[in-house]
Amino acid sequence: MKITIDNIDLDIPAVWMDNENTKVKMINQSLLPHVKSLYESDNYHTTADAIENMIIRGAPTIGATAAYGYVQAVFEYEKFSKDEKFLSEAYKRLLNTRPTAIDLKHGLMHVNESIQSNTSFSSAKRAADNFVNDLVEEARKISLNGISLLSEGINVLTHCNTGPLATIEYGTALGPILMAKQKGIENIHVYIDETRPRLQGARLTSFELIQAEISSTVLTDSTAGFLMKKGLIDMVIVGADRVTSNGDVANKIGTYSLAILCKYHNIPFYTAFPSSTYDHTISDGDDIKIEERDSEEVTTITGKSSDGTMKRVKITLDGVNAINYAFDVTPAQLITGYITPIGILTKENLYKLRS
Amino acid sequence: MKITIDNIDLDIPAVWMDNENTKVKMINQSLLPHVKSLYESDNYHTTADAIENMIIRGAPTIGATAAYGYVQAVFEYEKFSKDEKFLSEAYKRLLNTRPTAIDLKHGLMHVNESIQSNTSFSSAKRAADNFVNDLVEEARKISLNGISLLSEGINVLTHCNTGPLATIEYGTALGPILMAKQKGIENIHVYIDETRPRLQGARLTSFELIQAEISSTVLTDSTAGFLMKKGLIDMVIVGADRVTSNGDVANKIGTYSLAILCKYHNIPFYTAFPSSTYDHTISDGDDIKIEERDSEEVTTITGKSSDGTMKRVKITLDGVNAINYAFDVTPAQLITGYITPIGILTKENLYKLRS
Repeated sequence: MKITIDNIDLDIPAVWMDNENTKVKMINQSLLPHVKSLYESDNYHTTADAIENMIIRGAPTIGATAAYGYVQAVFEYEKFSKDEKFLSEAYKRLLNTRPTAIDLKHGLMHVNESIQSNTSFSSAKRAADNFVNDLVEEARKISLNGISLLSEGINVLTHCNTGPLATIEYGTALGPILMAKQKGIENIHVYIDETRPRLQGARLTSFELIQAEISSTVLTDSTAGFLMKKGLIDMVIVGADRVTSNGDVANKIGTYSLAILCKYHNIPFYTAFPSSTYDHTISDGDDIKIEERDSEEVTTITGKSSDGTMKRVKITLDGVNAINYAFDVTPAQLITGYITPIGILTKENLYKLRS
Repeated sequence: MKITIDNIDLDIPAVWMDNENTKVKMINQSLLPHVKSLYESDNYHTTADAIENMIIRGAPTIGATAAYGYVQAVFEYEKFSKDEKFLSEAYKRLLNTRPTAIDLKHGLMHVNESIQSNTSFSSAKRAADNFVNDLVEEARKISLNGISLLSEGINVLTHCNTGPLATIEYGTALGPILMAKQKGIENIHVYIDETRPRLQGARLTSFELIQAEISSTVLTDSTAGFLMKKGLIDMVIVGADRVTSNGDVANKIGTYSLAILCKYHNIPFYTAFPSSTYDHTISDGDDIKIEERDSEEVTTITGKSSDGTMKRVKITLDGVNAINYAFDVTPAQLITGYITPIGILTKENLYKLRS
């Protein structure tokens, strides 16, 4: 995406690995849109930290970052003659950074398979690049397929962030909207759930849409139902962190409530994701592990203070008990359709993503 | 309520008028729970400002504050021989501070009626005190009536703030829970929606429940649906800002979504309010004016920074468009029952509140 860092205009993906060394570089999303900076990681430990601490986020970007982290481990293994245990520990560390998004596991598996016969940095790097290229190509196809649902003047509500920051390039739920603009479909308006606790909607999606010159309105998460009642929302599109074989969808906390609100108001509810998000090994959403994160994400908020510096402020008294599920599960029966690289699927033909 | 201000332990209502002068004093709720202070107002202008800027909030407390503000106007009218226009302007200014809560209008009307035959400060003050005493007595009865719905170990979810800060004393939605504790019903757990944008749940309700030694958990507003799915919520109780004759309820934004989520999960949904919140002159919720507040309430958040001072931080980029409806309307068919001073009513017998 286009971003200006240290007064230099860049056009960079959300994450990549340098060709001349083993540095993994990523746009630091934790302080966006106020502070634009790169986060550079020399080894798999700091890459794992970046995933865990949400320097990057978004299921496809998480998958890509984990894949590159594992390439870094393969490099150390090869260069410093480490033992097999080193690699399995690296795999485990990266896998355990975030439990819900299956893209992470798929990225790691993809690199791991490439080194089964010959454990070399070059084959690992090639595998990771292929995984990332596939993600980008799939995001492009998702965007193209999703356009068929959009028309001039449509009002789309979305949740969390699913543009290029979350997906390397293009986007999943936001992809069709961004591509529709490029193809001249005018006056699409995007309502953006702010997406507490980490405000990915207010911070990141609104930033991406301003860049793309698409009009948008931020709302508190609990306002969505009232806007639906007022007839302001024609459609909801969200991303996904894991889709099970029966079509249940784990996605950012609040997605489940949105789907119920859509059902009540008879508004179509779509989810958009690449094939790496599909987990055919799990039959339904009850078996997805839902990440519980630190309650401080709920009781504090970081933003830009009047002196221009970033400040973290506490909302509640110390010691207040807060719960912080990062995701929820939306059952398939609440989902109108699945926007995928191979077309807009129903829960009955989701299995086609396996081939 | 019990509150320590300037190292002095006080037991004071949310708002009152001094007997020895015409000062209206209120607990400043805008910086709670971090900064505990009194806001003192000498005249109806600054009292109106306090309502508008949410130094106090909560429908009953708004009504009481407006009533006392009008008493201040009557005092000026009497003492400085102002003309009738002065009084009608004061009435209008106070009435227009916040459009949705009908208690505000009822408080003003109550004082206004008392001065129709004889415009004197003393009769106005007596009328305002009576209005406030009625609110407190009604809150006590609401609390007693609501207890019948509660049992040991029940998990209740609530939205926004409806304890003594919102209602002078006792509470509306929170009243039964606070009184149940006093009556020895143990292990009630309260799930508190943080209630963006102004976080009355995270800031005020959690503060009141800590004081009352009742266990609670704060959640982001979009987490409620997932907790319902997990079976963690037995009942939802919210307050009200205006209830129309058919039983539709205007209340804090997010209430409508909660009611739909309850319907979907078959969880009882109650609203609790005094008779001053009932507006028999409006047939249904479509005719309630919904207050739209400054978008800065969505794009900025105020909290306590690490150096102990209060800081306001910006979440979004400047110029981001945000919508900020302060309330929504929940239709009667989504409401299980109405917890009122005269009992737990259905929409069919709500009219009894008129007598």
